[in-house]
Amino acid sequence: MNVSGRPMRTIWLAEDGRSVEIIDQRLLPHELVIARLRTLDDAAHAIRDMAVRGAPLIGATAAYGVALAAAADPSDAALAGAVDMLAATRPTAVNLQWALAAMRQTLSPLAPRQRYEAARARASEIAEEDVAINRALGEHGLPLIVAAQRRKNGAKGDDRVQILTHCNAGWLATVDWGTALAPIYRAHDEGIPLHVWVDETRPRNQGASLTAWELLQHGVPHTVIADNAGGHLMRHGRVDLCITGTDRTTATGDVANKIGTYLKALAAHDNGVPFYVALPSPTIDWTLDSGDQVPIEERDAREVTHITGWTETGERVEVRLTPDGSPAANYAFDVTPARLVTGLITERGVCPASREGLLGLFPERREKARA
Amino acid sequence: MNVSGRPMRTIWLAEDGRSVEIIDQRLLPHELVIARLRTLDDAAHAIRDMAVRGAPLIGATAAYGVALAAAADPSDAALAGAVDMLAATRPTAVNLQWALAAMRQTLSPLAPRQRYEAARARASEIAEEDVAINRALGEHGLPLIVAAQRRKNGAKGDDRVQILTHCNAGWLATVDWGTALAPIYRAHDEGIPLHVWVDETRPRNQGASLTAWELLQHGVPHTVIADNAGGHLMRHGRVDLCITGTDRTTATGDVANKIGTYLKALAAHDNGVPFYVALPSPTIDWTLDSGDQVPIEERDAREVTHITGWTETGERVEVRLTPDGSPAANYAFDVTPARLVTGLITERGVCPASREGLLGLFPERREKARA
Repeated sequence: MNVSGRPMRTIWLAEDGRSVEIIDQRLLPHELVIARLRTLDDAAHAIRDMAVRGAPLIGATAAYGVALAAAADPSDAALAGAVDMLAATRPTAVNLQWALAAMRQTLSPLAPRQRYEAARARASEIAEEDVAINRALGEHGLPLIVAAQRRKNGAKGDDRVQILTHCNAGWLATVDWGTALAPIYRAHDEGIPLHVWVDETRPRNQGASLTAWELLQHGVPHTVIADNAGGHLMRHGRVDLCITGTDRTTATGDVANKIGTYLKALAAHDNGVPFYVALPSPTIDWTLDSGDQVPIEERDAREVTHITGWTETGERVEVRLTPDGSPAANYAFDVTPARLVTGLITERGVCPASREGLLGLFPERREKARA
Repeated sequence: MNVSGRPMRTIWLAEDGRSVEIIDQRLLPHELVIARLRTLDDAAHAIRDMAVRGAPLIGATAAYGVALAAAADPSDAALAGAVDMLAATRPTAVNLQWALAAMRQTLSPLAPRQRYEAARARASEIAEEDVAINRALGEHGLPLIVAAQRRKNGAKGDDRVQILTHCNAGWLATVDWGTALAPIYRAHDEGIPLHVWVDETRPRNQGASLTAWELLQHGVPHTVIADNAGGHLMRHGRVDLCITGTDRTTATGDVANKIGTYLKALAAHDNGVPFYVALPSPTIDWTLDSGDQVPIEERDAREVTHITGWTETGERVEVRLTPDGSPAANYAFDVTPARLVTGLITERGVCPASREGLLGLFPERREKARA
């Protein structure tokens, strides 16, 4: 999407053809810094330290990471080590495992000297596939926003469709377009008046820093709110629909997403507000029957006890929020049960959050399940 | 409760007898600063700028504010002006209006020259009444924690009673003991093993800064979490009960409390976790039949876009969290409907969150309702 009026992606092959460039998202929203990944270690660090984040972008970065590893050492042992190293960077994201499996499948049959070129091509293909999938999410999600606009017709006051989102499932979480935000960008570009309530999304504040930044850059009206505020807004009829992303969806439609998503889904359910989850199909974990089986990453408590922001003079400063001596815990994801999800927006269309719903769109999985 | 082993309150008459001292809570948890209120303006500022906060402490501070006004000018006009000024500082807190009405009732019949002494005495009485009420909340809430402990008996693993609380409803929100934390202090002092999940409570972080600080000072085990985490913990059986405070309770048991309380009540309900609200009876607004009638304060967006913390070198710094150009909204309270509240803990005992429940404990209100 646009940054200062210029189209941009989150990851791309550098002009030297042997390194990869990314937006270092840790410095947003105050500094737009492009970082260069030259090695496998660079790619693993970028994922682990969340210079890149968001399930699809993690997958694309891991794919490029394998290509960087192949450039240095294309042997079987080195590639197996690279895949293991990248797989361990973020345990919850299923796209990561999917992208690594795809790379392994491409490279294993090849002679070592053929691997680097093939890896680079396959990683770029994975990135392009992500863009195409997200564009399709936007197409399929658009009618949900149009429907919300129709429901508002005749309602007094604000005629903008009010959409609440949690965390960042925008283009910064993918290669381009985003997942949850793809329908929003699509509707905005169509001229549908809308406004986005942006959950700041503690503890890492991806909403306040990333979602707000990308909506601002693309000119989409929005307001940042504390994560605590969404229930109040829904009780007062100020949210027409919720759209979030997901890091992993089970075969039964349970959704693992950024911590706090479950609370918003409960509030949407309690107030009759439609709650949609947008997901590229690589995010579906067909091996899981229940969200309870999703491992939940527990991150450094320092992300809760400290926060980084910018002073008036533009200095980046980390400050402590809690008393010295008080422990903190940092669960990164929660699971929203399918019963609270109105529908899943996929690249093949919108379906109920259920096994039957998903199999309706992905019938080839029905064959596999039978096999 | 204890601070560095020494008992302390949040507000008291200074030794000069003509001014009042408070803990300036804006500097917690990193600096314990005592501020002196010498004038009506000082008291109004302390409430408006949240140097003091929490419904009962706001009430006590307003009462002392009237006394400070009476010291300067005890005329009818000056007192009426003082009451109006203090009443406008925080619109949602019903204790504020209650305390001001009590002061007016005491002072109106008196000759101006008698008013200062009477005001000082009445304000101190209001403060002592608050302490007595909160001690009673602790007594009546204790059996709920004992019951939770019994339910855990036989359960494997952690035998500590796990209690989640939101915002600060501890002694810092009152004159002493606290409301939601009073049963917790009481149970801890009884030797019941317990652990408190402390919601950080964005945007003002009263949990991370105040609740964590006072639990740490008194030696109560606790862990600070992002507001987003509570639903996940409840889904995983890691919360045995929730106890929050309230700024205003309707005659029907709806509860207005810090923004985000409603989301936790939804999660508790969804997971069969008891959700209790502790309230001194001055917090009950008998004139309201529904939480929808509670005016919800909207505060400065800067509380969402910026945050203040302490650097490694002990410097207090405010940093910006959101992009320059992204608007923010800051709703301070939400309403939790009575259907989500397991029980109300009052100074007279625990009752269902309903009109009948409340009238059972406060039968004198039944007479009034009939009249």
